[in-house]
Amino acid sequence: MKFLSKEELQNLEKKSSDLRGAIITMTSLAASGHPGGSMSSLDMMLVAYSMADCPADVHEKGDYVVVSNGHVSPAVYSCLSEKGFFNLDDAVSQFRLAGSIFEGHIEPDVPGVLLASGNLGQGLSAAVGFGIGSRLQKQDNQIFVFMGDGEQQKGQIGEARRFAAKYDLKNITVFVDFNELQIGGDIKKVMPQNIKANYEADGWYVIEIDGHNYNEIHEAIKTAVDIEKPVMVLAHTVMGKGVSFMENKEKYHGSTLSREQLIDALKELGAEDNWDKYMEMRNAFVPEQHKKTEHPVIKFTASEPQIYDAKTDNRSAWGNAINNIAKVNCENTKYVVFDCDLAGSVKVDSFAKTCPENFFEAGITEHSTATMAGSLSKMGFHVYFADFGVFGVDETFNQHRLNDINNTNLKIITTHVGLDVGEDGKTHQCVDYLGLMRNLYGFKTIVPADPNQTDHIIRYISSVYGNFLVPMGRSKLPVVKNAEGNTAFDERYKFEYGKADLLMDGKDAAMFVMGTVTGRAVEACTKLAEEGISVQLWNIACPEDIDVEALKKASETGMIFTYEDHNVNTGLGAITAVELMKNRLYPELHCFGVEGYALSGKSDDVFRYCRLDAESVYTRMKDLIKK
Amino acid sequence: MKFLSKEELQNLEKKSSDLRGAIITMTSLAASGHPGGSMSSLDMMLVAYSMADCPADVHEKGDYVVVSNGHVSPAVYSCLSEKGFFNLDDAVSQFRLAGSIFEGHIEPDVPGVLLASGNLGQGLSAAVGFGIGSRLQKQDNQIFVFMGDGEQQKGQIGEARRFAAKYDLKNITVFVDFNELQIGGDIKKVMPQNIKANYEADGWYVIEIDGHNYNEIHEAIKTAVDIEKPVMVLAHTVMGKGVSFMENKEKYHGSTLSREQLIDALKELGAEDNWDKYMEMRNAFVPEQHKKTEHPVIKFTASEPQIYDAKTDNRSAWGNAINNIAKVNCENTKYVVFDCDLAGSVKVDSFAKTCPENFFEAGITEHSTATMAGSLSKMGFHVYFADFGVFGVDETFNQHRLNDINNTNLKIITTHVGLDVGEDGKTHQCVDYLGLMRNLYGFKTIVPADPNQTDHIIRYISSVYGNFLVPMGRSKLPVVKNAEGNTAFDERYKFEYGKADLLMDGKDAAMFVMGTVTGRAVEACTKLAEEGISVQLWNIACPEDIDVEALKKASETGMIFTYEDHNVNTGLGAITAVELMKNRLYPELHCFGVEGYALSGKSDDVFRYCRLDAESVYTRMKDLIKK
Repeated sequence: MKFLSKEELQNLEKKSSDLRGAIITMTSLAASGHPGGSMSSLDMMLVAYSMADCPADVHEKGDYVVVSNGHVSPAVYSCLSEKGFFNLDDAVSQFRLAGSIFEGHIEPDVPGVLLASGNLGQGLSAAVGFGIGSRLQKQDNQIFVFMGDGEQQKGQIGEARRFAAKYDLKNITVFVDFNELQIGGDIKKVMPQNIKANYEADGWYVIEIDGHNYNEIHEAIKTAVDIEKPVMVLAHTVMGKGVSFMENKEKYHGSTLSREQLIDALKELGAEDNWDKYMEMRNAFVPEQHKKTEHPVIKFTASEPQIYDAKTDNRSAWGNAINNIAKVNCENTKYVVFDCDLAGSVKVDSFAKTCPENFFEAGITEHSTATMAGSLSKMGFHVYFADFGVFGVDETFNQHRLNDINNTNLKIITTHVGLDVGEDGKTHQCVDYLGLMRNLYGFKTIVPADPNQTDHIIRYISSVYGNFLVPMGRSKLPVVKNAEGNTAFDERYKFEYGKADLLMDGKDAAMFVMGTVTGRAVEACTKLAEEGISVQLWNIACPEDIDVEALKKASETGMIFTYEDHNVNTGLGAITAVELMKNRLYPELHCFGVEGYALSGKSDDVFRYCRLDAESVYTRMKDLIKK
Repeated sequence: MKFLSKEELQNLEKKSSDLRGAIITMTSLAASGHPGGSMSSLDMMLVAYSMADCPADVHEKGDYVVVSNGHVSPAVYSCLSEKGFFNLDDAVSQFRLAGSIFEGHIEPDVPGVLLASGNLGQGLSAAVGFGIGSRLQKQDNQIFVFMGDGEQQKGQIGEARRFAAKYDLKNITVFVDFNELQIGGDIKKVMPQNIKANYEADGWYVIEIDGHNYNEIHEAIKTAVDIEKPVMVLAHTVMGKGVSFMENKEKYHGSTLSREQLIDALKELGAEDNWDKYMEMRNAFVPEQHKKTEHPVIKFTASEPQIYDAKTDNRSAWGNAINNIAKVNCENTKYVVFDCDLAGSVKVDSFAKTCPENFFEAGITEHSTATMAGSLSKMGFHVYFADFGVFGVDETFNQHRLNDINNTNLKIITTHVGLDVGEDGKTHQCVDYLGLMRNLYGFKTIVPADPNQTDHIIRYISSVYGNFLVPMGRSKLPVVKNAEGNTAFDERYKFEYGKADLLMDGKDAAMFVMGTVTGRAVEACTKLAEEGISVQLWNIACPEDIDVEALKKASETGMIFTYEDHNVNTGLGAITAVELMKNRLYPELHCFGVEGYALSGKSDDVFRYCRLDAESVYTRMKDLIKK
């Protein structure tokens, strides 16, 4: 980061009229977009971007600029073109054009844009993730965050503020574009809020400035760099700044100028009118393949798998595995775990002792934690967000959706999924993890059958880039054995994503089972075998990509059962039906799963009430096979 | 509400030892549960519940007590039994027993419990919903909210605080059980926070008391009732209060006493030890059918449907319908709309003018709004939460999950779903609304095909109790006509939940279509018909409960296409596959939908890029039919 001279500041100020011209030109050309906030935040952005040593991508080192209100993309593109990342003409002419990188809300195909945003309230959390990453990388950098004022109403921002204060992230400076207008008009009427007091209450230092005064902006950044606290710059600005008839009108949050209005506005700004040139470029635009993101290679040193003989809970196996991986790999500090006040239950306490610098306790702040875990992972870390299923998936689905759009490297480890949550009852029974995560195109869900498979899966996800969910229950589970009585997932087993595990062969029917109930499936099928009914039993650890070979072999029996302690409408059974139809395989299909909100009670009792215990499943299968 | 005499307070204090005994007895009997926080909050709860005129259910009038940290259920059951709602012995002996109403986290099958809780951070929002409802009902009541101190870390609470301040809900009093311990230990270490400053910054009045001093508790409530602001009582308490070896130990957040420890503890409390009696009751317990919730009957006066001839956006049709319904029904004030700073886009501005008292502008606070809309609806209101798809569904899924568990009467109206969001791009394209909502057992999703069907659907959901999602796109849509060229959903049409609409008959293949793309489907099928290929076209407005008759008739053609601007893995196509397998119908199935995160561009361009425009679909169908 560098400070600017008076002359440089004056040059920027002069430049700003042209860039305002670009903002209103691109939004008018696209006949959509957000000129008002772009013009109110431009001056701050211009100074901050000019001072910052910005990388093209967040896995490179440098100062990081995060724009939380992604709809001010016209201002962002203007500033990044000034930094030389691309030609402004391209951004102006291609703005919001299908196939162009210059989308309505910023996204990281644009060089210099670090993260997609557009869902308000997540940007500060993302910046906090970068703050943590910078510290782990021992970078001496600055992180600038731009946010809207209406956006301050989102609760997640408070969570991020307190985390930043706890971990003393004094290199973070937030700029609030305080133009006092949101879509519904005057922010004091839409939702009264004392933004300054909110930040101060959470331990931040606040500087108030005129957000259009270049010296004040520059001084504020100098002060922010000096102050030993995270800083919020409350910048008084004017929506639509620079064009008299746009100023202070909320309409221009999301309305663009007609061609006639644009001519007047450009004249007032003293900016060039290149409408015809841009229109020609726009019409001639041919989409190119977007750049392929190169993922940072993270060194992974394998360690010996741990084999369990005795009943063990999968969550302990996860805790042991990550601790073991950390011991071997801790030195390069690329493994990071986030906890939300459940360390003992989600078994990350050993890791916390082994790698205290890489363990972050976020308290009860799941929304913010999900976002910062994702953003940190983009920097070149393997990040594990460990939580109960309902918090790590249901509560934070939208954060993971944005993580997925951002192509992060996040590993969500959830315990207490399915019916196996102890007596906590329906609010805590996460029976929809698969039904939810299937909606995210990039995330992969891997469901371990027992502690041994858990160990293999954790080692697998720790060695590859990408977003994964690994869900597990709470109870101790039997070690799964194959038909020969050998441990199914021993040291010879190698986890391969998408491959189903044949646990028992059979010809009278087949069963696909997932997760916690696998041991119960073995029990039910063994009992049937003893009565001369042979069932082919498959463990499906990768239900989103069901093994087609298993599907075919199972279909040959003429009857497939699916068995899961997941919502029966949206889990393994539902996916199996889709895959059968897709592959034109038509066995009888019977799905056993959770059919409604369940009870609070001991796990075994809850399974029995839902007819998902081994005995019930044995009876249900027998009745159906005999028919 | 009544104030208490000194004597009454002394009697409560005496009583508290027995209730503490009940708390530790029930948790020890169940060998699970949360005694520590139950004991720290008991004294406040006992005074507040004693003062409040509590109804058994929230659709009755009275003072409302909301417990946000539902895991302190042992304290709640103790207080409610004191109020005479049920026998304490039943709660103690059945605690956390499968089939009993006395679940681990409170839920409304228990008389006097108004709402299920357990997902932290939602209770204040729920109470704010009750505050709004009480005002609309012109009740002069008090609303008491119990919360944990660790829970204060959740951002949603800030959203609820600001809403309460904006709408001047001065009858709300929050009690924070400030025992300074959370699961991870000292809250100052887990996540430092100035709770008092947080509330004051949001315009609340704060009273600090000793949460075990009965006079101070009583005085605080008296002050809170007087003060013309929402009030937070920061109550300094002791985790495990009353049993010396439990006090100030975070372990007792979620650990119970052994039989031996219990004997000592009961002795110290001077409470009776009835272990054997309770154990006998527990073993003898036979679950009964849980009480059926009687939903309040909401008077609905029907009005004439509005018929559209010209291209109209579904969201305008929704806005017109709710405004029209409000005009006819406004007098009884049972129709309420919540907006999150998108009134113009989600078309609730006319309603806001027609029924200003029943319109609530919450700003950009989707989490809190989703919860309060749900809780208000439980009081006997039809509540509409209008928002963009990504905010009204993806962002708030977990809030709706709790609403669904609570069996609310919430109507979520989302615009800007699917690919039809204008140029806002992938962050704003909600292509998973069905994939998400299918996971909620009680919610029903109804997807209108055009403005006329929208009008019928809004009238339908406005006349029945229950949770519904009605998703719609942004653009103007053609009025859907049937094969005879008549308006498909005119005044003679009657919406029936679950019934599919046959738009064109045919025998060469069938198509199931949903939502925004219905007009495009008509176009593609008409073009095929002109070439002699007859396709049976069904509009599926209720994709979660696909009409089996339609499924059978369509299967007879031998080939079914599904067509949607929704994630192809989790929407109409996926459900169709499941239903076909379930009904043992095996036509060829081809699913057209969104296969990955899409572009930012004009709607028509985006559809074309995704091969979901009418022309592409026509070609894709033709190629497959000809094969």
